Amino acid sequence: MALKTLPAKAAAALDKDLMSSGAFSIDQLMELAGLSVSQAVYRVHPFAMGRRVLVAVGPGNNGGDGLVAARHLRHYGYQPTIYYPKRSGNDLYKRLTKQLEDLEIPFVDDFPVALKSTDHVVDAIFGFSFSGEVREPFPAVIQALSATKVPVTSVDAPSSWDIEQGPPKSGTGSSFHPDVLVSLTAPKPLIKYFKGRHFIGGRFVSPAIAKKYDFDLPEYEGVDQVVEVGPNGQKL
Amino acid sequence: MALKTLPAKAAAALDKDLMSSGAFSIDQLMELAGLSVSQAVYRVHPFAMGRRVLVAVGPGNNGGDGLVAARHLRHYGYQPTIYYPKRSGNDLYKRLTKQLEDLEIPFVDDFPVALKSTDHVVDAIFGFSFSGEVREPFPAVIQALSATKVPVTSVDAPSSWDIEQGPPKSGTGSSFHPDVLVSLTAPKPLIKYFKGRHFIGGRFVSPAIAKKYDFDLPEYEGVDQVVEVGPNGQKL
Repeated sequence: MALKTLPAKAAAALDKDLMSSGAFSIDQLMELAGLSVSQAVYRVHPFAMGRRVLVAVGPGNNGGDGLVAARHLRHYGYQPTIYYPKRSGNDLYKRLTKQLEDLEIPFVDDFPVALKSTDHVVDAIFGFSFSGEVREPFPAVIQALSATKVPVTSVDAPSSWDIEQGPPKSGTGSSFHPDVLVSLTAPKPLIKYFKGRHFIGGRFVSPAIAKKYDFDLPEYEGVDQVVEVGPNGQKL
Repeated sequence: MALKTLPAKAAAALDKDLMSSGAFSIDQLMELAGLSVSQAVYRVHPFAMGRRVLVAVGPGNNGGDGLVAARHLRHYGYQPTIYYPKRSGNDLYKRLTKQLEDLEIPFVDDFPVALKSTDHVVDAIFGFSFSGEVREPFPAVIQALSATKVPVTSVDAPSSWDIEQGPPKSGTGSSFHPDVLVSLTAPKPLIKYFKGRHFIGGRFVSPAIAKKYDFDLPEYEGVDQVVEVGPNGQKL
């Protein structure tokens, strides 16, 4: 049975709910989301495949998840590099950035060049709030991700995909299909167009919240913060 | 070789440093500390030993770590119960409490009674900033922990122990010896009096910070947030 999906508007309402009535801070949620992503990368990309991970960070919360994931990956023993061209002035993102600088993680300016010397990419550019056109400087990044053979893990949504309609019909991103997707809290409708390895992360949702938003909590194992499911969310 | 220990004053300075120059928020640090504790409990106390965990929560940061640990334990499948007699008015603790209430985790008022129907205890009463006398209502709690046969995991320090001098020579706590200790960031000097299973947690310390405070980062495995070491901190 496929897991139920969470449309973009419901995902936004859920996030808001977690932070108001759920009493979570964004620091907490982002820490746990980024931790989930890092655990999924560890599962799909063992050290034997190379330790270099290029993390493409967008301007919003999806990017913040990427910054957190990069820190955990560094602690596991990976060698992350960060591409973060549109930095937020928000205090939280500045702090997450400082935490990476303190670990001597390099920040790079040229994504296509950096892509030539990495073993894995984390796409933390756009999440469930994305819609419309990919803005500069990201079209070239999505283009490079479409063309590369380096495996890509997308956070919550393949960047440039419409949350409900999936990959764009033409233009930038029309041929971008990541190898791995980490859906946060619940899969979004776009998963019906996704064919790679699929994880659910975000082991902080209460049964009451899941019921309110009409989705199923996945069955995590042990102390894992992610669980692998089928491409369309079905239990493996 | 024993790991170097961190005296109480240095532990306080390190915490302050993590939150100022290190740019961590207390939400982030507490989330990762509590997660470490929950993973240690999962290691020492498999479900076959019973799922009921009584978490004794003190008024400060050590208590906050306990509140976070309880939430993760609930998500793993344990049945936590919380004893939290001196609630802080601080917003963070209120939010961590609300997160537990949303998971329908019960709060109890009578510790000795609750102790009779649990399988494990997490002692999150006092941490590295404790010194002097145990204040009400905690003497009876420490007394009960001294007398019980239920296994106890202490967070950062066995409550009532002096951070440098270890167990009190007489009175409350003189016979309290927890089965498990989770040292956060680095072991405190009291570990030379500790004889149980010992874990280090807090996989967020940068090599630069460890160097500044003159302690060794332990070798964590995989995506683990804790690592087991010898009672005195030596590598197993």
